[in-house]
Amino acid sequence: MKAVILSIGDEVLSGDVINTDGAYLSKQLGGIGIEILYHQILGDNADFLGAFFLQAYEKADIIITTGGLGPTKDDLTKETVAKILGLKLILNEQVKNHITSYFEKRHIAISQNSYTQCMMPQGSEPLANENGTAPGVYIEKDGKIVILLPGPPSELQPMFENFVRDRLMKKINKAFSEKYYMTSGIGEAMLEQMIRDQFPEQTDYSLNTYITQSGVMVKAIGWGSDEKSALKQIENQDVKLKQILAQFLYSEENEEIWQWTARRLKEQKITIAAAESCTGGLFCSYLTKVAGVSSVFKGGIVSYDNSIKMNILCVKKETLDQYGAVSSQTAVEMASGIRKKFDCDCGIGITGIAGPDGGTEEKPTGLVYICVNFKGEIKVVKNNFNGSREMVQRRSAVGAFNILREFLNKY
Amino acid sequence: MKAVILSIGDEVLSGDVINTDGAYLSKQLGGIGIEILYHQILGDNADFLGAFFLQAYEKADIIITTGGLGPTKDDLTKETVAKILGLKLILNEQVKNHITSYFEKRHIAISQNSYTQCMMPQGSEPLANENGTAPGVYIEKDGKIVILLPGPPSELQPMFENFVRDRLMKKINKAFSEKYYMTSGIGEAMLEQMIRDQFPEQTDYSLNTYITQSGVMVKAIGWGSDEKSALKQIENQDVKLKQILAQFLYSEENEEIWQWTARRLKEQKITIAAAESCTGGLFCSYLTKVAGVSSVFKGGIVSYDNSIKMNILCVKKETLDQYGAVSSQTAVEMASGIRKKFDCDCGIGITGIAGPDGGTEEKPTGLVYICVNFKGEIKVVKNNFNGSREMVQRRSAVGAFNILREFLNKY
Repeated sequence: MKAVILSIGDEVLSGDVINTDGAYLSKQLGGIGIEILYHQILGDNADFLGAFFLQAYEKADIIITTGGLGPTKDDLTKETVAKILGLKLILNEQVKNHITSYFEKRHIAISQNSYTQCMMPQGSEPLANENGTAPGVYIEKDGKIVILLPGPPSELQPMFENFVRDRLMKKINKAFSEKYYMTSGIGEAMLEQMIRDQFPEQTDYSLNTYITQSGVMVKAIGWGSDEKSALKQIENQDVKLKQILAQFLYSEENEEIWQWTARRLKEQKITIAAAESCTGGLFCSYLTKVAGVSSVFKGGIVSYDNSIKMNILCVKKETLDQYGAVSSQTAVEMASGIRKKFDCDCGIGITGIAGPDGGTEEKPTGLVYICVNFKGEIKVVKNNFNGSREMVQRRSAVGAFNILREFLNKY
Repeated sequence: MKAVILSIGDEVLSGDVINTDGAYLSKQLGGIGIEILYHQILGDNADFLGAFFLQAYEKADIIITTGGLGPTKDDLTKETVAKILGLKLILNEQVKNHITSYFEKRHIAISQNSYTQCMMPQGSEPLANENGTAPGVYIEKDGKIVILLPGPPSELQPMFENFVRDRLMKKINKAFSEKYYMTSGIGEAMLEQMIRDQFPEQTDYSLNTYITQSGVMVKAIGWGSDEKSALKQIENQDVKLKQILAQFLYSEENEEIWQWTARRLKEQKITIAAAESCTGGLFCSYLTKVAGVSSVFKGGIVSYDNSIKMNILCVKKETLDQYGAVSSQTAVEMASGIRKKFDCDCGIGITGIAGPDGGTEEKPTGLVYICVNFKGEIKVVKNNFNGSREMVQRRSAVGAFNILREFLNKY
């Protein structure tokens, strides 16, 4: 079944309110296998609403509107839709009782406007509003489903989950299944091409890529007559897809690389600390996004100044003099220094030139050395990152997670 | 002039990515007096895009698309629009050079896909992309303006502000002037209300609020027949607006609070270091987003583990035993400890419970102590922040900048 979402309201169209209803409904509908044709945002204009409602009614099986159900003169959704569908508005006693008691409980006099909310299109069903006065409206006509929902997420979301989702599930009679493949260390374009070459488009299995904070997520969706056959579609392609994603794949759950890392560190009882120069604490702040990481993460040092590298991390003065602060030698000494100082299993050292200034021909902006000292075993990688200062910093911090991953997968 | 915005991409239509481009463009266009007819979100489907582009082209003077300019097979915007407008795609050498050097700098082989990004509709102008490979496209045809922008906000926003806004301004023959008022420490809803009460809507002066990383930006726009009269509109309201924003206002330039802080530290020759517990390095990573901060920022310590607080920051064992790691006493000792250890003018100490677990009745999630030790003068603030773990961490780090600001403004 195909759906169109129409969001109505000047405040949404003007950008004063970011429209989260559309994304919420898209995920909810997608989750039960309903295809979204498009989502349109309109102002409080009855002519426009009428024309675009009609267009949606022609194209889709399900039309969901959000907003425009309030008691003010701008709120035109119910009147406009009823008119187009040729349905009279009739006083609904059940709704009237709800609204009357809503105001009585709050010791507020009912405004005349509020009575317009008691009027419902002929043959429709009201959907109870737990957090406001405006009821939703559910209509079936000409084999189409029309659902009018209030705009505020606190009213819309419980209404959808309590009164709409189940009705739609019964209508569809189709099952789907999905699976996530999380990658890091490869760009979206490159990944897409690798996948596309191996997986031509098919109707019962689809792959999509999405950029995450730490890489690119591949989402597989399988379709079938029941859940088991939908899952089978995903299982059939699983080994092949994983072979293609190869070393870039870090997880088969929807999680960032720091969540995966924190989990593995805890499972493997590996303690960790990081010494950061050009990333300025970003690696540590990524890792501490994860709740409960304190059992394995001991802390870190942002050694921006060379004196800190020497005095706290015990990087040798000769190393800094001979090779410079941005060198593999310094990265190695930072990693072993932090590991010793913080008395932990694994030490990270990151040093580089984030830019945009400070680069030379020999050591350009974007040159970053990352070292992981894992129980004494050392790996150091030289990188040439491109992009803005913030992008170099982000790529450096994510790069450290990717080197650490090799060790966590090895042991 | 009337505009339609078309946002294109399966990830937006599916709700996996919340579409902020629409709200951003609506505010920007509204701000220069262009009326938005509607905003439509479409998937990566050439037939649909074609049909709805044509509909928009018939109804509006300006059609802006966002998304679908990347190098993957889903990215169909340019091809589809060019076909409908009857424009051939031609290799653009300027764009090719940009993309080639983008990849060369990163030492990455160019994928064949990336060459499709070098093709431009005949008679169009490329719009340079500062933060990615995909150029924007500007087309004038049949008295209509068609603008194709990339989807990621980091690419779209500078492109709009640098290359699109001025062109549109010239078309509507009106001058404007704008000024930024950067605030921190107050929510958008509260700020909005304070402003609305004092500044009723007027045609030649408008105020809009935007959430930034470190607070809320108020953007004033003045209108006039020429630049001077537009500027006058802003000057007329300047004193009144600043009185309302009061202690929340930190800058009258478009900059985050860490940029303001880095500038002031450098001007006042104040060196700084931070000891962070619950923020896990976030304060330091914010400050090191600013290029050239190394002359005043010496570094930091993420003292996640209590042993680090004692061994490196010299927080007394008795303090931790008697008051706990989350206490004003510990925050004070962290700030003075880091200041001494890193031998600098100003030390920051942040300790708290980011949650979601780890809170108690006495010390609930969101309880955060922040201390600034400024040349021996101490201020410590107890906070009770709301929100998710990440929100508590962000609010804590930003809170530290706000306390530091008081000292920087005092001396």
